[in-house]
Amino acid sequence: MKNTATLLVICPDTKGIVAAVGEFLYRNGANVLHADQHQDGERQLFLMRVEWDLRGFTLDLDEFDRRFSPVADRFQMRYRVERSSRPFRVALFVSKYDHCLVDLLYRHHSGELACEIPLIVSNHPDAQKWADFYRIPFHVLPVTAQNKDAAEAKQLALLAEERVDLIVLARYMQVLSPRFVEQFPQRIINVHHSFLPAFSGARPYHRAFERGVKLIGATSHYVTDELDEGPIIEQDVSRISHRDGLEDLIAKGRDLEKVVLSRAVRWHIDNRVLVYDRKTVIFD
Amino acid sequence: MKNTATLLVICPDTKGIVAAVGEFLYRNGANVLHADQHQDGERQLFLMRVEWDLRGFTLDLDEFDRRFSPVADRFQMRYRVERSSRPFRVALFVSKYDHCLVDLLYRHHSGELACEIPLIVSNHPDAQKWADFYRIPFHVLPVTAQNKDAAEAKQLALLAEERVDLIVLARYMQVLSPRFVEQFPQRIINVHHSFLPAFSGARPYHRAFERGVKLIGATSHYVTDELDEGPIIEQDVSRISHRDGLEDLIAKGRDLEKVVLSRAVRWHIDNRVLVYDRKTVIFD
Amino acid sequence: MKNTATLLVICPDTKGIVAAVGEFLYRNGANVLHADQHQDGERQLFLMRVEWDLRGFTLDLDEFDRRFSPVADRFQMRYRVERSSRPFRVALFVSKYDHCLVDLLYRHHSGELACEIPLIVSNHPDAQKWADFYRIPFHVLPVTAQNKDAAEAKQLALLAEERVDLIVLARYMQVLSPRFVEQFPQRIINVHHSFLPAFSGARPYHRAFERGVKLIGATSHYVTDELDEGPIIEQDVSRISHRDGLEDLIAKGRDLEKVVLSRAVRWHIDNRVLVYDRKTVIFD
Amino acid sequence: MKNTATLLVICPDTKGIVAAVGEFLYRNGANVLHADQHQDGERQLFLMRVEWDLRGFTLDLDEFDRRFSPVADRFQMRYRVERSSRPFRVALFVSKYDHCLVDLLYRHHSGELACEIPLIVSNHPDAQKWADFYRIPFHVLPVTAQNKDAAEAKQLALLAEERVDLIVLARYMQVLSPRFVEQFPQRIINVHHSFLPAFSGARPYHRAFERGVKLIGATSHYVTDELDEGPIIEQDVSRISHRDGLEDLIAKGRDLEKVVLSRAVRWHIDNRVLVYDRKTVIFD
Repeated sequence: MKNTATLLVICPDTKGIVAAVGEFLYRNGANVLHADQHQDGERQLFLMRVEWDLRGFTLDLDEFDRRFSPVADRFQMRYRVERSSRPFRVALFVSKYDHCLVDLLYRHHSGELACEIPLIVSNHPDAQKWADFYRIPFHVLPVTAQNKDAAEAKQLALLAEERVDLIVLARYMQVLSPRFVEQFPQRIINVHHSFLPAFSGARPYHRAFERGVKLIGATSHYVTDELDEGPIIEQDVSRISHRDGLEDLIAKGRDLEKVVLSRAVRWHIDNRVLVYDRKTVIFD
Repeated sequence: MKNTATLLVICPDTKGIVAAVGEFLYRNGANVLHADQHQDGERQLFLMRVEWDLRGFTLDLDEFDRRFSPVADRFQMRYRVERSSRPFRVALFVSKYDHCLVDLLYRHHSGELACEIPLIVSNHPDAQKWADFYRIPFHVLPVTAQNKDAAEAKQLALLAEERVDLIVLARYMQVLSPRFVEQFPQRIINVHHSFLPAFSGARPYHRAFERGVKLIGATSHYVTDELDEGPIIEQDVSRISHRDGLEDLIAKGRDLEKVVLSRAVRWHIDNRVLVYDRKTVIFD
Repeated sequence: MKNTATLLVICPDTKGIVAAVGEFLYRNGANVLHADQHQDGERQLFLMRVEWDLRGFTLDLDEFDRRFSPVADRFQMRYRVERSSRPFRVALFVSKYDHCLVDLLYRHHSGELACEIPLIVSNHPDAQKWADFYRIPFHVLPVTAQNKDAAEAKQLALLAEERVDLIVLARYMQVLSPRFVEQFPQRIINVHHSFLPAFSGARPYHRAFERGVKLIGATSHYVTDELDEGPIIEQDVSRISHRDGLEDLIAKGRDLEKVVLSRAVRWHIDNRVLVYDRKTVIFD
Repeated sequence: MKNTATLLVICPDTKGIVAAVGEFLYRNGANVLHADQHQDGERQLFLMRVEWDLRGFTLDLDEFDRRFSPVADRFQMRYRVERSSRPFRVALFVSKYDHCLVDLLYRHHSGELACEIPLIVSNHPDAQKWADFYRIPFHVLPVTAQNKDAAEAKQLALLAEERVDLIVLARYMQVLSPRFVEQFPQRIINVHHSFLPAFSGARPYHRAFERGVKLIGATSHYVTDELDEGPIIEQDVSRISHRDGLEDLIAKGRDLEKVVLSRAVRWHIDNRVLVYDRKTVIFD
């Protein structure tokens, strides 16, 4: 298991940032494993990700903020430091379609997703068997127009109790309220079964079929108050032809949804995603 | 140069169509080179394309309609027969962006597009040099809000004079009037620089850039009265990242536009496209 | 559940085949659902797939051979008829890497693969838990250089007992003997973790990494006596960059292997694959 | 026209490199536009590309080597500095297939390739018309087994006279001698019409067709003494089916060859390519 720290920075673009950060890390004995940066010329922003090995790093990470503050202040940085030894705690939300859930659980099981999954939440009992197989607590909380507030309150209580950092909507078919969403800014990942912004909203495969598109897509994105309008993390497409009926679109779409959602989750828990405005930078 | 005939059929789906068409062609000595059919289960439609070698075919094609009418009537067919010896006459329309025009001209020159190109029409003089190089008559017809009717009348006169079968809008930046479009139903191919229905209308690359999509696309489609709403012929996409600025999107998009438009033109002149409702069948 | 029959034909290309087959099916009341054909101009071969609804079909399928033989004889056809009511019986072989196995089991469970899976065979005990979860008998048969003949004899006995039609090697790491392979001609599907013919043989990801390719691939194919040389059913690729280490190639490759193998299995059990020479036709 | 400098570095991976380079550039007033780096963990190598605006840079670039040498020596760097004001001088070599040549010339003409093209060399006269159109000197040097040495000597003289930095083999069908190649190490880019290492050598499309692959590819790479074994710069693939004859493979392949070669040329002249061992790093 690797023992690294990752620094994510966003600040106005100016001279000397790389030199200052590089000097700070070098002075404290950091063995840099990955470093990537990006300048957004239009918005005059500088974005950076640095990951370093904590072996040999002479600074206690609990002291990082205090010691790094001169650099951060000088360049007006927003930043955060994550450590691999404290893995993300991820809650999976699911309804009836279980392909994304099953895919994520297997990837977690096989070591592809370095996080903890303390619970699965569903508004239907159907996915119980997968939770049992992987020995993850499963909470059925039916949601109706009437009980939505109460149901979300229960969900939030569970999430708080389990100290959840990230919510993954694995084809969870309920729209979360603004009150819920604001508790997890840029911490809720959804998969939409279309190539956004095409076919946002309901029944995207039906509408793609009717429109006669030649490619179908899927999109993973952070959830915001505006439905299907949050920052896009990943998209992919698959070719279809007139021979594909609606059922074929749905089947091909499932494979897209799985890869697009699992990539988003992996990048998030690897601290590879930076959000600004309505866009994401994915550091590779 | 091949000497073939191609039959395209659309009719209600019922039993016996293949047997009847097959028997008709066989009786007249057709050596079938390609045959493809499609049943649209939802709409209960049968669609077919058959191409056969005219060597050994004992029926004069001018007699085809009269002799085929019992079959056509029995199955309520809409159909047409095209012969390769009568290549499509294609007009290219262009404005200032010339990459699609240059691409189509080279493909035609190298034998990839088996059609005739009797004229190029533009609202700007810029593309004259390409027309000269390939020795194709070039007509500059500036279009303004004031002279649009007169300009289109001149265009239509030129197209009639040259007996044009197909108009290709190779990044032609003027919207054609309904009066113009109705003269060429399913005979005008446009390329739109987005993955329709996403970013229909103006400035799609700018909007794709602002939205932060992870793939950009291009779409070729038949022109109808509704802007960017005609039947889609072909689409393709290309991956982009946060490192791609607006200029990079536009550059990557050019390569998409070229392939997406040239495929549509080739399929149309090879009689591989059947339109029904708002969709296309592309027989391969 | 659909109740259809599928006819697959290969014969020398000549005039009248479509008419004759179409007339035969029409005369017996077939409601054709899908028909596809292909002419291989180089080899002068005609290949066809027709699927029809058995409701309304007036011919007992057990009588098919006798009644169809005049047509078959006239055109020197090799053909077979399959019925959807008799699903393929598929054996899955696996070693330690379980991602393809788990993927196939889930697809089967969710109705995507219309076959029966009466057994799983492995040379390691690791996959037992998946077999248990899906309630499929699991047979551990360790294979060594010494016991290989005996182990294969036991495998063949199991396959015979379970009347297996198709063997799927889901990352089964043992090479089957020619004696074994000849029992299942074009009935063993393997997945190779490279874009064949590149990197055939051992350790393809290592060699791809060393060679510095920019795309990695996976290939599903029928097993023949020549290792990795059998007819290719499906291939796909994924982009990599210098940032991808060997472990990343292997992880990305897993997703390729899953889709490439599951497509091959689905096409085979849907009777969409025709093999001739060393190639396949995939009827869509 | 941009006025930038680009530094490319390769050295053993150790602590402090980024800090040292960053500090050096900052001290001299560099406004960094793009910076990218890569650590090859296996080989313990550090690779970096930095591009900065020369406006405000206080160091004369002719002095760069002298001033940078303490940093370079300390970290045992191999490095080079390129300036955008001194564009690459590129020679295009072509035989009869002209699609790559025409594509590159158009991209250059439209501003997509920021280089100079002082000459085109061919062993056939066919491409003269394109050279004339774009007003580029065209040299016909027929090559036979007998005159190969003399022909290459003439080519080398032309290249020296025109101070050529980069040779692009745009489907040039002659194998260059080791003597020739060693004059332009990592300065000759070839396009091979297959997905290397599959189908290296002669007639790749024929062999791909015979093998029945489901995807065809193209590869651009640096030329070394070993045929088709040089470091790969870019690869791409296109899906084919049994319906594609050999001619279709060749036609689809042309589009692959064009994009794969033009990307390699653009990346090379943008100083985005670093070669080490037999691999490339493409800084994006």
